[in-house]
Amino acid sequence: MIGKKLARHLARVRAIADRSITDLSLLDMTRPEAPAGFYGGITTATLDILDREAVDRCIAVRPDVIFHLAAVVSGEAESDFDKGYRVNLDGMRHLLEAIRQEGSKQPYRPKLVFTSSIAVFGAPFPEFIGDEFFNTPLTSYGTQKAISELLLADYTRRGFLDGIAIRLPTICIRPGKPNKATSGFFSNILREPLAGREAVLPVADDVQHWHASPRAAVGFLVHAASLDLAALGARRALTMPGLCASIADEIEALRRIAGEKAVRLIRREPDPAIGAMVAGWPRAFDAQRALALGFCPDKSFDDIVRIHVEDELGGRLP
Amino acid sequence: MIGKKLARHLARVRAIADRSITDLSLLDMTRPEAPAGFYGGITTATLDILDREAVDRCIAVRPDVIFHLAAVVSGEAESDFDKGYRVNLDGMRHLLEAIRQEGSKQPYRPKLVFTSSIAVFGAPFPEFIGDEFFNTPLTSYGTQKAISELLLADYTRRGFLDGIAIRLPTICIRPGKPNKATSGFFSNILREPLAGREAVLPVADDVQHWHASPRAAVGFLVHAASLDLAALGARRALTMPGLCASIADEIEALRRIAGEKAVRLIRREPDPAIGAMVAGWPRAFDAQRALALGFCPDKSFDDIVRIHVEDELGGRLP
Repeated sequence: MIGKKLARHLARVRAIADRSITDLSLLDMTRPEAPAGFYGGITTATLDILDREAVDRCIAVRPDVIFHLAAVVSGEAESDFDKGYRVNLDGMRHLLEAIRQEGSKQPYRPKLVFTSSIAVFGAPFPEFIGDEFFNTPLTSYGTQKAISELLLADYTRRGFLDGIAIRLPTICIRPGKPNKATSGFFSNILREPLAGREAVLPVADDVQHWHASPRAAVGFLVHAASLDLAALGARRALTMPGLCASIADEIEALRRIAGEKAVRLIRREPDPAIGAMVAGWPRAFDAQRALALGFCPDKSFDDIVRIHVEDELGGRLP
Repeated sequence: MIGKKLARHLARVRAIADRSITDLSLLDMTRPEAPAGFYGGITTATLDILDREAVDRCIAVRPDVIFHLAAVVSGEAESDFDKGYRVNLDGMRHLLEAIRQEGSKQPYRPKLVFTSSIAVFGAPFPEFIGDEFFNTPLTSYGTQKAISELLLADYTRRGFLDGIAIRLPTICIRPGKPNKATSGFFSNILREPLAGREAVLPVADDVQHWHASPRAAVGFLVHAASLDLAALGARRALTMPGLCASIADEIEALRRIAGEKAVRLIRREPDPAIGAMVAGWPRAFDAQRALALGFCPDKSFDDIVRIHVEDELGGRLP
């Protein structure tokens, strides 16, 4: 989802920092759609990241910048232990090794922008999680992301690539249909009412979480690719600046933008199992490093709702 | 080295906490020596941790407690990138998967005591590194240990085993011949003069580091195996309480115990490359969690020297 939006953005702006984009390769399990309006070379293809030789062939074209967003999401990595480790850990190693092997033929040191997650953190937390707080994930997904961050930092330190891991907040409002991410309800209670449909809220109104719009997430990725990563030193993983909001804050933003009839479409059905999981999730960060490096958060939850209305609903409310 | 001392200790005390030891299996790349005086079952065999089927066969006997000390040391993991990842990461995964697969046949949840390292931390550091400081290793070895800690925690959380990772301080005085660990000089400048031989000191006298005697390290391992690990919650990695000492502190202890003639055997040959590496190493910790759980550090550097004289030199000084 973010990958598709990123591809559209890159096709439109045709540059990363001051370097113009000449070729775009878009790779996914199912063949991605080519974004309209890009005049450079464009390749769209299927890629199974578990097929090491296929990964090698993709890297053999020596891209300057690689965005790695492929992942089994949190809920699925928890329900299918083997698949999570295969895709999220072995897949990452395939990519890193393909780059290293390509560089062993002749010098090659691409920029690698990896989407990590705030799931690398696990409760109990301080009120604001600082940039030097430790990683004690409470999910297999978070474990796989934390391991990938460590690998990326080591491959960077050894000179095989120039990596940055950005820990995305929970994306809100995630467009399209619900996926297997446990955090889906944060989006569902806005997206569904905005389309005139009912949504289930399984947790209490005072549950706080850390959010970013899809537009902010694309902004993080592009900014990461634009930076001189030497500024990061050896510490290549950055928590992105999200917006801390409670369920009540979400609902108030929905009320201000779409009115009481939208809010009435939210049906409270407390689910203790989901409530217990969410209690272990981070709520708020002090993302100083990322802010100092120019990463820009959403300004308000109203903005997060408006971005969805503009980008997904053509500006129309039900 | 620690494994050998641990085996001797277990053979002598014949119990872990209040459970007596009925069988000991000792496995290494070369067949370990059976410790004397153990009246239970004893198996010594070679094991290549990269041979997954061989690891499976070792786990098939369903040991209650597993000590995992196998590793490529820091210097070698840095000089041979592939070997380090194979042994220190893939090897760990072989062990974890062998345990998980064994448990899928019929319930099995052994205690796994894994020796991690303070190399999981990377500079810059606070004056004292707390229990919640993040892991940003500056070596491939430290990266592999940090990843192994994450895997151990996730396999524990999923109920496949009951794991604890203990981050050993640098072992001092390491007996025997120098190995490929970059930190070897901390031991060399004591062990060699205590045996009447010259030793090279490649760093400045004010370099501080975090040490534990082999006897303290064995104590940590046995105590870890004795604990009810539920007390650790989800956070299964613990920094062990070492002793913070400078090179000057080491030399003064040597002087007090073996006299000026031993100190005169230390030859200062500053090596800027080693100095630069050591500048990135941790110096001192605030190991509150481990102390609260009853892990015992060495009391003084004089004790560290005395332990070597007692355990390795039969109490004799040159």
